[in-house]
Amino acid sequence: MVLQKGKKNCITDVEGVQVGHKTLYEKVNKEQTICTGVTAILPHSGNLFYEKVRAGCHVINGYGKTSGLVQVEELGFIESPIMLTNTLSIGPVMEGTVTYMLQQNKEIGTSAGTLNVVVGECNDGFLNSMRLQAVRPNHAIEAIENASSSAVQQGAVGAGKGMICFGYKGGIGTASRVVTASNEKYTVGCLVLSNFGDSQDALFANFPKKKNPNSTDGSIMMIIATDAPLYDRQLKRLAKRTAAGLGRVGSHMDNGSGDIAIAFTTANPSVHNVNGHLESITYLRDDDQAMNQLFQAVAEATEEAIINSLKHAETTEGQNGRVIEKAPLT
Amino acid sequence: MVLQKGKKNCITDVEGVQVGHKTLYEKVNKEQTICTGVTAILPHSGNLFYEKVRAGCHVINGYGKTSGLVQVEELGFIESPIMLTNTLSIGPVMEGTVTYMLQQNKEIGTSAGTLNVVVGECNDGFLNSMRLQAVRPNHAIEAIENASSSAVQQGAVGAGKGMICFGYKGGIGTASRVVTASNEKYTVGCLVLSNFGDSQDALFANFPKKKNPNSTDGSIMMIIATDAPLYDRQLKRLAKRTAAGLGRVGSHMDNGSGDIAIAFTTANPSVHNVNGHLESITYLRDDDQAMNQLFQAVAEATEEAIINSLKHAETTEGQNGRVIEKAPLT
Amino acid sequence: MVLQKGKKNCITDVEGVQVGHKTLYEKVNKEQTICTGVTAILPHSGNLFYEKVRAGCHVINGYGKTSGLVQVEELGFIESPIMLTNTLSIGPVMEGTVTYMLQQNKEIGTSAGTLNVVVGECNDGFLNSMRLQAVRPNHAIEAIENASSSAVQQGAVGAGKGMICFGYKGGIGTASRVVTASNEKYTVGCLVLSNFGDSQDALFANFPKKKNPNSTDGSIMMIIATDAPLYDRQLKRLAKRTAAGLGRVGSHMDNGSGDIAIAFTTANPSVHNVNGHLESITYLRDDDQAMNQLFQAVAEATEEAIINSLKHAETTEGQNGRVIEKAPLT
Amino acid sequence: MVLQKGKKNCITDVEGVQVGHKTLYEKVNKEQTICTGVTAILPHSGNLFYEKVRAGCHVINGYGKTSGLVQVEELGFIESPIMLTNTLSIGPVMEGTVTYMLQQNKEIGTSAGTLNVVVGECNDGFLNSMRLQAVRPNHAIEAIENASSSAVQQGAVGAGKGMICFGYKGGIGTASRVVTASNEKYTVGCLVLSNFGDSQDALFANFPKKKNPNSTDGSIMMIIATDAPLYDRQLKRLAKRTAAGLGRVGSHMDNGSGDIAIAFTTANPSVHNVNGHLESITYLRDDDQAMNQLFQAVAEATEEAIINSLKHAETTEGQNGRVIEKAPLT
Repeated sequence: MVLQKGKKNCITDVEGVQVGHKTLYEKVNKEQTICTGVTAILPHSGNLFYEKVRAGCHVINGYGKTSGLVQVEELGFIESPIMLTNTLSIGPVMEGTVTYMLQQNKEIGTSAGTLNVVVGECNDGFLNSMRLQAVRPNHAIEAIENASSSAVQQGAVGAGKGMICFGYKGGIGTASRVVTASNEKYTVGCLVLSNFGDSQDALFANFPKKKNPNSTDGSIMMIIATDAPLYDRQLKRLAKRTAAGLGRVGSHMDNGSGDIAIAFTTANPSVHNVNGHLESITYLRDDDQAMNQLFQAVAEATEEAIINSLKHAETTEGQNGRVIEKAPLT
Repeated sequence: MVLQKGKKNCITDVEGVQVGHKTLYEKVNKEQTICTGVTAILPHSGNLFYEKVRAGCHVINGYGKTSGLVQVEELGFIESPIMLTNTLSIGPVMEGTVTYMLQQNKEIGTSAGTLNVVVGECNDGFLNSMRLQAVRPNHAIEAIENASSSAVQQGAVGAGKGMICFGYKGGIGTASRVVTASNEKYTVGCLVLSNFGDSQDALFANFPKKKNPNSTDGSIMMIIATDAPLYDRQLKRLAKRTAAGLGRVGSHMDNGSGDIAIAFTTANPSVHNVNGHLESITYLRDDDQAMNQLFQAVAEATEEAIINSLKHAETTEGQNGRVIEKAPLT
Repeated sequence: MVLQKGKKNCITDVEGVQVGHKTLYEKVNKEQTICTGVTAILPHSGNLFYEKVRAGCHVINGYGKTSGLVQVEELGFIESPIMLTNTLSIGPVMEGTVTYMLQQNKEIGTSAGTLNVVVGECNDGFLNSMRLQAVRPNHAIEAIENASSSAVQQGAVGAGKGMICFGYKGGIGTASRVVTASNEKYTVGCLVLSNFGDSQDALFANFPKKKNPNSTDGSIMMIIATDAPLYDRQLKRLAKRTAAGLGRVGSHMDNGSGDIAIAFTTANPSVHNVNGHLESITYLRDDDQAMNQLFQAVAEATEEAIINSLKHAETTEGQNGRVIEKAPLT
Repeated sequence: MVLQKGKKNCITDVEGVQVGHKTLYEKVNKEQTICTGVTAILPHSGNLFYEKVRAGCHVINGYGKTSGLVQVEELGFIESPIMLTNTLSIGPVMEGTVTYMLQQNKEIGTSAGTLNVVVGECNDGFLNSMRLQAVRPNHAIEAIENASSSAVQQGAVGAGKGMICFGYKGGIGTASRVVTASNEKYTVGCLVLSNFGDSQDALFANFPKKKNPNSTDGSIMMIIATDAPLYDRQLKRLAKRTAAGLGRVGSHMDNGSGDIAIAFTTANPSVHNVNGHLESITYLRDDDQAMNQLFQAVAEATEEAIINSLKHAETTEGQNGRVIEKAPLT
């Protein structure tokens, strides 16, 4: 059984989810090119700090620098946009996101405690002159402010601008699935930042042999959104199923890869610091038949999101005249 | 690139590794049939307690009862045969294995401390009259004593006697791969106990739709052996790559599934309680090109071992006249 | 602030919790003495399989063989009595507990799936002739059937019969605390099986120097019960706070020690396999002031339970005429 | 047994380890005061990227934002200074540290892959006007450049400038222990950034009752250094023993606390990207008697480092005229 796709076949099919990009592309001089960016995934359009979303994460391979996961593991929620960028720009993107959240919430850092920000990354150092540290805090703010719930722009955009997948141009990809069970309809969306693999590894296409020019530090960030009523333990389970989708396209999760999955639900948000001391959640039982379909939806959406990142990514020229071609996919 | 298979295409291609089965099959009365067994994987043919093997494990989905993993995680080695059986027989198999090890080692429980035994399981309750608790401690001992390094008997044998995979007869399957890098040749073998999936999920074959009669409690145990010089942290990394192989055949790691991987190496054994206080290991650097090939070998061998479990499993009749057919694979 | 103790200062102050022991003590011949047993903790007096309790666990040091934790981690509940015994008897105790549960539930292994059993252990091999494997499955059943909610018998009883703590006779100990916050009263109970430490390590008493005769394989099992409305993630947090209590008595969690904590709540039970697909839980917010008091209660109750295990344990003679004395505590 | 202290009773007793501070203290206006800083721990004085140190970490309570742990868990080493600062300044400190490392290593981001930076934090928002985001990337660089192997400046300095512990002025504290076993001498050092607890919780002193003005977001960072020959799995074990020391001073690891431990050894460094594909390590066996003493050393040094952070911290005035007094300790 292959599950039905969502209306836009995007992570934004999950109601409330928004995605925004800030792309940086500039030929600095003969050798150096800025070819990078920032992508923001907003779990909902409200105030994320005051209405936190339940979340879980899973590190398939941890050669990666994603920050913010310690608190997601402990408390089971996300309270900021999920940000994606290049490996050396976690710092400025974190700073910009903190600044954005401080502006939105006057009480953070005074009466309302502090803030956890989640920033993931892949290494775009083949095309992007990474050592320039071109991404600045305000670029993160711009990515957040660009966010919308419409169809997601995919390929060589935002954080995906300089990424390479199976030797061809990769980057941002997305897909979604709809699960119908027990008279309920749930949507699962996946957004990936793809940056891994050799051309010979692809199991979904017969790519001509290419020497992958960036083989040692590939990575993939996989963000899963759903509206199914779940809680943190279950969202970790969803996050783990990305490994099935990743395996199906041909990845064997190489040493130099940060293969990291984060899953959240828009159901069951938790309000920051209310007076009442008890909270209730209604969740799908693990043994409900819909749960297995949610797992399947994650596997399928992850697989297709990776392929979509290739389909939408245009041939891109980066530093030192290096060119990464569009994959021969239609 | 598809890696080369080992000579026997079995986990026993890793020198020293031995596999033994004890199959229990008996029609008790009109309703009840004993259709189960025990499988033992011996990491080497010496004294496992005195020459422990480095190991790592990974729980993909933990709806399973595998015992012994706590100590594997803490100390990074295995000191007994790895045993497989049905879900309700972990206890007797653990007892039998302890008894076997006590007989082999007069000092366990007196001067030499205690012993950790690893026992994994899948649920064969559709074919096997599980409530009879037919597996006894001596069956575990027999499985160990039956172990040999020749080609592994696959399919409906040992712990695999009553297992079901993709709606067809599953059970024991194995495969191996050879990695050649940096002038070295390493072998990776995988042995699975397959017991999961609906007929419509299979991605490697166009199975006719069958109602999976045992859908809620599937599982798969995946044992990875290698002779590559690694240590425990790295072996956990190998264990994690089984998820790629499992995803490729079509699993989405269902809720009721215990999907558990254990990896060990025959290189770098650790001798029990020697006098010297320092120990040395020589290991493959994580960034060596062979490491990624080892990861690929795990993914490929796991995928093929699952398919092999189906290819070799014959049509089997279990309790209440239930019959599970051989898969239409050649 | 030191929290108030519960009425019995026992884990059974948590309403519904029951504890039962089966002690085995027999001089077999001049050298060999059976000096061991089984202890059962029943989270409530109903049918545990049909009314599962939410649970979390934490391995402080994993040189231990506790079985059943894989599924507790994945699903967040316990569905059987929690059993304690000696290291080499996990197998028979698991078998006995499975048999007990099969008798109670005719559907396990047929229509109702399988069963996860949790068995913890410490090594009593200094006093107990462990190699005799004297604990049989029926002893586990007897321990379960002996369970009651009255004040817990402590010291050299049940699984504690042969245990040694700080060089003196240890074993079963328990304590409880009451937390009052936000107009609610919650009880936290701890039961330990203590079997660790050198006499010079004790921070709570000035013990005369004794050579600990069993120094390499100490361990402690710590079972936390509460009636506070929590869920699995939060119960793992409670389990982690046992490390504070354990540290306070003087443990430094030695290499050869299985220091393992399991926490459950009697609130929010989950009914097995009902028809409805959604479930609700009401839980204490992590930022409620009562949560920190629950953490404190775990630390204090664990500390006192360990001391109580010493206070109640009488001088015991084991194999080879070995005698472990009662600690000089009143 | 109480272990012997190192010569300076500082983390810098571990040969090669260096510590540097950058303190920021400025009354901005009537309400706002910058009262914060950065502390850098350099595992050795060479090039950390090219000579990585083996490391492990443990999250006791994860209400914290420490970044960089994902890769430490996966690969078992640290390749940059370990940085400490306030909660909202992880971003700029990460950026500054990346910049410093890029300057030191022209190949990072081009031929030599990327870089993982570890930054920990506590919340100094009671004294420090945190929302000003006063810490800039260059402050991180200054802290690194200030590093020396002499006796560590403790108390209200560097990242410790605005921290509060048990209601009194906390911050940076350090201690060390020497382990002698098997004819070898090993040193263990601990450096903490203390920022937790109510005055009534202290178990080592009879503090007058004080309302802790910053109770919800305490935290403690604990950095363990040693020269004992260990590898990553063992260093995680060391990191876990900080919980014993933390419990002993009176912490019950409150909800709003990021209680995080990182341990590294200066033995067995791993050279970046050499040509040879195999690497050797010599390590202390887990069952060597020195291992338990290393565990004890971690517990003792952590306990004393926390107390030292209080002993050395002077009365400090922060924002809004708030004053936190020196603890009544000598």
